[in-house]
Amino acid sequence: MDDAAPGAMLDSERVRRDIRAGRIRGTSRGLAPGFVQCNLAILPKGFGFDFLLYCQRNQRACPVLEVTDPGDPVPRRLAPGADLRTDCARYSVFVDGARQDDRSDLTDIWRDDLVCFLIGSGITFDAALERAGVPTGGDRWVLRSALPTEPAGPFRGNLIVTMRWLTPGQAITATQVTARFPFNHGAPIHIGDPAAIGADLASPMFGGPVPALPPDRVPVFWACGVTPQAAAEAARLPLFITHAAAHSFITDRTADSVMLP
Amino acid sequence: MDDAAPGAMLDSERVRRDIRAGRIRGTSRGLAPGFVQCNLAILPKGFGFDFLLYCQRNQRACPVLEVTDPGDPVPRRLAPGADLRTDCARYSVFVDGARQDDRSDLTDIWRDDLVCFLIGSGITFDAALERAGVPTGGDRWVLRSALPTEPAGPFRGNLIVTMRWLTPGQAITATQVTARFPFNHGAPIHIGDPAAIGADLASPMFGGPVPALPPDRVPVFWACGVTPQAAAEAARLPLFITHAAAHSFITDRTADSVMLP
Repeated sequence: MDDAAPGAMLDSERVRRDIRAGRIRGTSRGLAPGFVQCNLAILPKGFGFDFLLYCQRNQRACPVLEVTDPGDPVPRRLAPGADLRTDCARYSVFVDGARQDDRSDLTDIWRDDLVCFLIGSGITFDAALERAGVPTGGDRWVLRSALPTEPAGPFRGNLIVTMRWLTPGQAITATQVTARFPFNHGAPIHIGDPAAIGADLASPMFGGPVPALPPDRVPVFWACGVTPQAAAEAARLPLFITHAAAHSFITDRTADSVMLP
Repeated sequence: MDDAAPGAMLDSERVRRDIRAGRIRGTSRGLAPGFVQCNLAILPKGFGFDFLLYCQRNQRACPVLEVTDPGDPVPRRLAPGADLRTDCARYSVFVDGARQDDRSDLTDIWRDDLVCFLIGSGITFDAALERAGVPTGGDRWVLRSALPTEPAGPFRGNLIVTMRWLTPGQAITATQVTARFPFNHGAPIHIGDPAAIGADLASPMFGGPVPALPPDRVPVFWACGVTPQAAAEAARLPLFITHAAAHSFITDRTADSVMLP
């Protein structure tokens, strides 16, 4: 993608244009492959310090890739031509902690004091895992754990994790590969027994029911970017906006370019 | 140091006790070897969001290892028994940007709205470099560069860099070793010609005059933790406090343990 002709439109720009025009309304999964997709959290600047501090204190789960200036809906570092009010296909909106109807456009409710946090997603290193021979298509769940995060202001809650089932060889390779992405969750936080971290296999947040573990597989766990979103929801802010699940924000940065900030 | 008897005093705790009692008044360089030393920045919470954002936007120069809660002088993660008002041997204090007399104790001027930022220092990976055969004792300077940092609120300024002169082989080893410390400046930001980044060889901030480069050496540059301190000074805050140069805060964390957060 670095070889694109000057002025040529990036895949990420094309997809965002189609989302903005309402031509794409579904999940972002699989769109603009190779480009970093981010978790989005939007909240009033008054809570910005505590939320940024929460992310700093729980950096494995909450790798902040960009924070916009108050009132500015443009992610000038990750996608200078984008508008965070319109370029996710679907947004979830919470008022005083109560979920409102989802929206496809935030322009009506935009305010000058809103700050947007773009937080790295485990999707970022999927392509690198695939290239190293670690399949990423299935056997992957998002689970609640019993590990507490470090609170900051009103933000707190347990760590949410991504579990993948891998062969022992894949687990070693995946540890090496993901350690190269310290600003996108980095290396696993646990390997082996789910009970050791209190992983809630009974009620996965995403990924469907968890079947019995095949004998040749080992569960491997990474800190998950859903963690800060859950902490912000639980804080019952006057206003909190996030991308709807699986409708992430697509940046112009290629996955390999965000290994370091 | 992990083998210390339970309840035994760490070297870092012993040194801080001596600093607090006034028995140590000089530089922290060489004290409690193996323990992480941090740059310290203390400012009113009202500037906390912008300063934390400045650090996030310039993470290579400003790796934040801990931020205390407002009014709390205890760095609960890095040194739970310490007091940031007394445990640096010397502090520099700025009021409206004007430098006051240095102090050895902040208790008199402490306020409930002050927030302490502990920022990683290149000293952290010196021991790892030495173990890998890269000498760290000399041929090292802190220099202004012409590379702008990304501003946030009132905080802005050019990147300040640490330059080391190494053999080509040492330069490669040093790149590999420091890349393992992504949360302590990480890999070099430049190698070779100082002019390419506008490094100010004529007026080093630390390290003394820069002699002629020996023919078998290559200059290698890392982002330096003096960067956020200079940005905070230049912002002329109502109150800004930092450790006096070379009088860093000594934490209880060993250098190898802070490779990841």
